[in-house]
Amino acid sequence: MTKFGEHWEASFREMVVEAGAKAIADAGIEGRELQAVYGGSMASGRLISQEHIGALIADQMGLAPIPSTRCEAACASGGVAFREGYLSIASGAYDVVAVGGVEKMTDVSAEDVAIALGGAGDQEWELFNGATFPAIYALMARRHMKEYGTTEEQMAACAVKNHANAMHNPYAQYHKAITIEDVMKSGYISEPLKLLDCSPITDGAAAVILCATEKAKKLYPEKAVEVLASSQASDTLALASRQSMTAMNATAVAAQQAFAQAKLAPKDIQLAEVHDCFTIAEIMAIEDLGFFKKGAGGKAAADGETALNAKISVNTSGGLKACGHPVGATGVKQVVEACWQLRGEAKGRQVDDAEHALTQNVGGSGATCVMHIFKRADRK
Amino acid sequence: MTKFGEHWEASFREMVVEAGAKAIADAGIEGRELQAVYGGSMASGRLISQEHIGALIADQMGLAPIPSTRCEAACASGGVAFREGYLSIASGAYDVVAVGGVEKMTDVSAEDVAIALGGAGDQEWELFNGATFPAIYALMARRHMKEYGTTEEQMAACAVKNHANAMHNPYAQYHKAITIEDVMKSGYISEPLKLLDCSPITDGAAAVILCATEKAKKLYPEKAVEVLASSQASDTLALASRQSMTAMNATAVAAQQAFAQAKLAPKDIQLAEVHDCFTIAEIMAIEDLGFFKKGAGGKAAADGETALNAKISVNTSGGLKACGHPVGATGVKQVVEACWQLRGEAKGRQVDDAEHALTQNVGGSGATCVMHIFKRADRK
Repeated sequence: MTKFGEHWEASFREMVVEAGAKAIADAGIEGRELQAVYGGSMASGRLISQEHIGALIADQMGLAPIPSTRCEAACASGGVAFREGYLSIASGAYDVVAVGGVEKMTDVSAEDVAIALGGAGDQEWELFNGATFPAIYALMARRHMKEYGTTEEQMAACAVKNHANAMHNPYAQYHKAITIEDVMKSGYISEPLKLLDCSPITDGAAAVILCATEKAKKLYPEKAVEVLASSQASDTLALASRQSMTAMNATAVAAQQAFAQAKLAPKDIQLAEVHDCFTIAEIMAIEDLGFFKKGAGGKAAADGETALNAKISVNTSGGLKACGHPVGATGVKQVVEACWQLRGEAKGRQVDDAEHALTQNVGGSGATCVMHIFKRADRK
Repeated sequence: MTKFGEHWEASFREMVVEAGAKAIADAGIEGRELQAVYGGSMASGRLISQEHIGALIADQMGLAPIPSTRCEAACASGGVAFREGYLSIASGAYDVVAVGGVEKMTDVSAEDVAIALGGAGDQEWELFNGATFPAIYALMARRHMKEYGTTEEQMAACAVKNHANAMHNPYAQYHKAITIEDVMKSGYISEPLKLLDCSPITDGAAAVILCATEKAKKLYPEKAVEVLASSQASDTLALASRQSMTAMNATAVAAQQAFAQAKLAPKDIQLAEVHDCFTIAEIMAIEDLGFFKKGAGGKAAADGETALNAKISVNTSGGLKACGHPVGATGVKQVVEACWQLRGEAKGRQVDDAEHALTQNVGGSGATCVMHIFKRADRK
């Protein structure tokens, strides 16, 4: 992956090439061994006036004429691209596939970014009426506080923990430790969410190489990471249409399917990269994924149960909050972090004896959730 | 599918529901039998300020929580969505999948549409410098005329034939027969391409239901259409980077793969829906697909060899030219036409003894080509 951040001197295309070339080098293959590409990008049409991102990636990487397909599912675009790459190998069409995610967000005004991101929700019923994403997640936070007694300090604890993890991730946007007091003193963006509850606007790209299982085990017996489960679910675009504002049904459904596929339970997972676009989203995720009971996520965060090498290590990369959130790249970055952890290469933020990792990538306010469970391939 | 045209009183969402509901009814299933959705849409972010089209489709159709994924490959978005649906069934993940394509283009200014469509090509090297799509295809036409002696009248013959076919397609945007003289007298858009060489701006949606082969043969022994081949290839985004301006390498590569998969040759195909965004594109397509020798496409068109029930029936739907071109929907509409023809349901434009149909869907100026070959399932 590229470093995540404000890359005023790197274009969309340059970031694609940097992440793609690093992934190919890491896999120890030649570009010509790739048989297809899947790319996740959410809002390139509005942010850089460019669609047809699949072809762009193959072109910039010098990979034509292999097929190259863009997938879009708002902030879950990267995770969905990974899933399509996975399914394409499962179909037998290909053996070796590259999956990339990329977004270039800092070349347009903050207003234009807000409008582009609003396209992840229900344009007609939410954005048109002024409900930007911080407002939508603020509604969820307020309701979670009312129903379960979750506090602003408990939400702040997620941000503090993610900034602490990011201190040890050289690819993270922020290398700045923060305190609960820092979060509580930061200005309200949409009450009760404050500046330091919100993930930032970020440029960045991430890429991975997928390979059919038997081939991967032969080529990389100690390095390969196995995909044990892949699942995806949907929900209404608009928050107002849902039965609950404090749980994401798409996450719950995808989790049930993923754990069944992997024949694992939440207790078997050592680390999870979850979609903390706002701190309340991390609290809801760790509940909906079954790591903690519904309503107990805030207390668990405040008690340190999601810190590095605690009960479960959540967002060791720094999460969207501190590693940054280039929307189309985030889902692929989660997979990259899972791989590094399962290989024991996450220096300074390594989870001890990491055997199973989970990634949970959300689009919009929960209308898409895509999930994967990974295992170190050298273990039985 | 919806009728293609200028639907000032139907929204993007309404068109999704109309096409989706018709496809479900045609398949004789219940919506709850669907296990996943794939949707093709190119430029919804710019045209209706809405991304996350996969979730939108599932939401509008009342299909949540099943997975729903948007694919984007410019004007090949529909074809690529169909291919991803096909691969997802081949992977074993699903048995019954809906594939839709949709675009709502007439709610913004012509300038905004031109900029949105420009995102299909190379924004930095083409659109930024003023090369809109008619200009790019005009360069190809001029070169084809120089190398092979193709004439403006030969190109016009494609438009005349496609308008004649559209007279019998109730879903077509135009029901207006035109003559060679009409085309020749229409104003230049980008010389040598005239108004009647160009496909129009269109609203519309199309949808199909895909089902695992054995299940389809059991459920619909006489109605099901079999997918014999699916292929996709890429090329450089920018025309200037290619070796040839008179052939699309992505089409040639995809055709080679598709015919090999289907164990068929061009002579075995009775009808083809090809991507005639401009008349010159149809001439290049029938050459690159192997129906005619390179350089002989113009003469073949003028000689009537691509007319209904001639040597090969090309664009019986009316093609992009006369059926209309809602970009994300076009690739799925091609599949719909192929199905109707192979079932013998294309009243007034029916190809006699149609056994094999081919669809060729192009993104941009040829940076993506996705192709499918279909067979009537009740024949051995």
